[in-house]
Amino acid sequence: MLVANRGEIALRIVRACHEAGAEAVAVYSDADAGARWVELADAAEHIGPSPAAKSYLNVDAVLAAAKASGADAVHPGYGFLAENAEFARRVAAAGLTFIGPPPEVIEKMGDKAVARRTAREAGVPIVPGSDPVSGAADAERAAAEIGFPLLVKASAGGGGRGIRPVAGASELAGVLATAQAEAAATFGDGTVYLERAVPEARHIEVQVLADGHGNVVHVFERDCSVQRRRQKLIEEAPAPGLDPALRTEIADAAVRLARHVGYRGAGTVEFLLAPDGTYYFMEMNTRIQVEHPVTEVVTGVDLVAEQLRIAEGESLSVSQSGIVLDGAAVEVRLNAEDPDNGFAPTPGQLERFDLPGGPGVRVDSGFAAGQRISPFYDSMLAKLICWGADREQAFARARQALAELRIEGVSSTAELHARLLADPELCEGPVHTRWLEERGDGAP
Amino acid sequence: MLVANRGEIALRIVRACHEAGAEAVAVYSDADAGARWVELADAAEHIGPSPAAKSYLNVDAVLAAAKASGADAVHPGYGFLAENAEFARRVAAAGLTFIGPPPEVIEKMGDKAVARRTAREAGVPIVPGSDPVSGAADAERAAAEIGFPLLVKASAGGGGRGIRPVAGASELAGVLATAQAEAAATFGDGTVYLERAVPEARHIEVQVLADGHGNVVHVFERDCSVQRRRQKLIEEAPAPGLDPALRTEIADAAVRLARHVGYRGAGTVEFLLAPDGTYYFMEMNTRIQVEHPVTEVVTGVDLVAEQLRIAEGESLSVSQSGIVLDGAAVEVRLNAEDPDNGFAPTPGQLERFDLPGGPGVRVDSGFAAGQRISPFYDSMLAKLICWGADREQAFARARQALAELRIEGVSSTAELHARLLADPELCEGPVHTRWLEERGDGAP
Repeated sequence: MLVANRGEIALRIVRACHEAGAEAVAVYSDADAGARWVELADAAEHIGPSPAAKSYLNVDAVLAAAKASGADAVHPGYGFLAENAEFARRVAAAGLTFIGPPPEVIEKMGDKAVARRTAREAGVPIVPGSDPVSGAADAERAAAEIGFPLLVKASAGGGGRGIRPVAGASELAGVLATAQAEAAATFGDGTVYLERAVPEARHIEVQVLADGHGNVVHVFERDCSVQRRRQKLIEEAPAPGLDPALRTEIADAAVRLARHVGYRGAGTVEFLLAPDGTYYFMEMNTRIQVEHPVTEVVTGVDLVAEQLRIAEGESLSVSQSGIVLDGAAVEVRLNAEDPDNGFAPTPGQLERFDLPGGPGVRVDSGFAAGQRISPFYDSMLAKLICWGADREQAFARARQALAELRIEGVSSTAELHARLLADPELCEGPVHTRWLEERGDGAP
Repeated sequence: MLVANRGEIALRIVRACHEAGAEAVAVYSDADAGARWVELADAAEHIGPSPAAKSYLNVDAVLAAAKASGADAVHPGYGFLAENAEFARRVAAAGLTFIGPPPEVIEKMGDKAVARRTAREAGVPIVPGSDPVSGAADAERAAAEIGFPLLVKASAGGGGRGIRPVAGASELAGVLATAQAEAAATFGDGTVYLERAVPEARHIEVQVLADGHGNVVHVFERDCSVQRRRQKLIEEAPAPGLDPALRTEIADAAVRLARHVGYRGAGTVEFLLAPDGTYYFMEMNTRIQVEHPVTEVVTGVDLVAEQLRIAEGESLSVSQSGIVLDGAAVEVRLNAEDPDNGFAPTPGQLERFDLPGGPGVRVDSGFAAGQRISPFYDSMLAKLICWGADREQAFARARQALAELRIEGVSSTAELHARLLADPELCEGPVHTRWLEERGDGAP
């Protein structure tokens, strides 16, 4: 198995390979020579210079590594090439197994306008919105139907990127032009569409698994509403205070969509949940997600192991009725960033890295003390995942774990997380996706 | 809460206090100044020089620390003063709560001959054996009834200490004299009794919890048959291959005994399980045990949190029907010892201590990189506990976790454990308590 990624997710995949009795081949850029996941893999291939465009995003280099190592399958992790349909096609063309859904499903879900249409076809509610709009006149017509406030969204966006809010009609033309130019520059595709803004919405996402034998199951939901600039900071499973009937309804909608598109592998269907209980399809991520561990610890299902099984042509190891929620989990993303300095990345040498332990504590990290945190990649040092018999215990354990954590050499978001996990509003119940920004903690 | 212990169990108790919203006061000897559990407690009291007799075993010093710190309860952990009834009495006399059963229960179970009698009264099977024997003639009469091979056991022993095997009649008088002298020297009490040896027996122990409101539950069993010189090396929950009816029968016997003696708190009833399915009471440990985490990860019950609840006069947070087995767990004790050199302790500076992580992996340790492993105390560096949906996955994760572990500065038993966890005999099914020695791995 070629592990076409880096950091904690690369090590996560190496672990799953070893537990399944398979060998794992790591890839690494210049900056990642000697990294922990490289050391722990069975073999490793150098794939180029440090900038991701020249290594982790370089399809030719990754495929050459797969060939050189004798791998027969490629796991893309998340980010980098994970949702690149062309990469998935080239992996298959090289006679290798791509750990993910068919390329046409990646493509369909990758275009957010097409994904909306597909969800509607599958009978999954979508936020009232438009088809792609070209000019200002077109947009104004659509906006009149949708109403304000609304969002201009890039078709090629996703993961919270390529979204611009519009408060009223007077702003529309200006924001449209900016959004189109930005989308063209960022994604190489200027297509945008309009969507009604759903105020005070929660981010609820459903984990699905589908094998090649017609089995499609959900593994319950996660709540990822604690965000800063549409990027997730804290994730939970299950979603707190969710009505059981609504939980089932949303999960069923996700399964329906996965079935409708002929999904295969692990995927996530993301929804907005309005305060009145209406929910809307947002997007589908056709890969494993950063926050997958919270689902693992409340269900006992090993999602990466299931990905490997599915890719091998086996059936899922679990049936829907066998997947049962047990307790609650919370994950915090520990980033090498300085929250007091606009969350600026703080690369450097990890001088001390004493991890917490004890009951209910799981740490997923690609690093160890003595290693360098590179400026070339995202700044995640570790994910801390805590399980409890209930949400209160999970939060208490996470606070204790953060108190035990010792990081020296780089700044981190640990203190911010410790503060958030003790925040009465968050401890009490669900918050919405702009909660953090509205209280000033995630600003600017 | 005064935490009257050191190392990983001290940190375990500090964690439980914090999660319950209580403050924890650590105690420390000279050698333990600056230790991790001391640093992570809310306050700390120095209790004397490094040798345990002058600090952790010094009742006056521990009580003075409790008084000085304003603690209102004392948790003894395991070892040291945990099963010292006199200490429990003095804690109570000082107006503090002792986290454990009533002193008279500690006393009753601490005398192994009395414990046998008590088990018999409770209708719990005991190994055929004698009352305390005084001289050779007395012993010969008893041995004639019991049959050979048999064991001479010290009444004041326990935890695998104070036991001598006797193969045949000709050895009896000699071993008796040695055992009596040894027991007098080690435990200050030369009383011994005889017990039939049960060949190829497994060590099965049942975790019980009892509150002050009449609730007594079992939290299923552990299998601790992988031993070296009667000391546990690897522990599992549940016991592999145990017939469900037999599991229930043994668990019920443990609950019966706990109820019979008026138990309160967390305790463990240890049994020998013969290959033919007969089982015998061995002893009861009136405290939390080293291997308690395997029970926690397969049931979700936080045993130390329950101890605190019980001491506060609350009811158990769980009922018998709410305690459900989920998956399998294995724990290995990582000791700073050199298996190639007769398991000699290797104290020293912990230069590197990179812990494993990922799904199902829990680490309980009192140490971090840069700290000294003292020659004054037991040599445990950490406990590695791995959960899996089944035993095979738990073992695979433990093997992977051991491969990730990096310890430098002291020798450790990690490699021995990696070898054992890959051993086909152990992987396949239950082994008996002399399995390791018979194959030569634990010898001498």
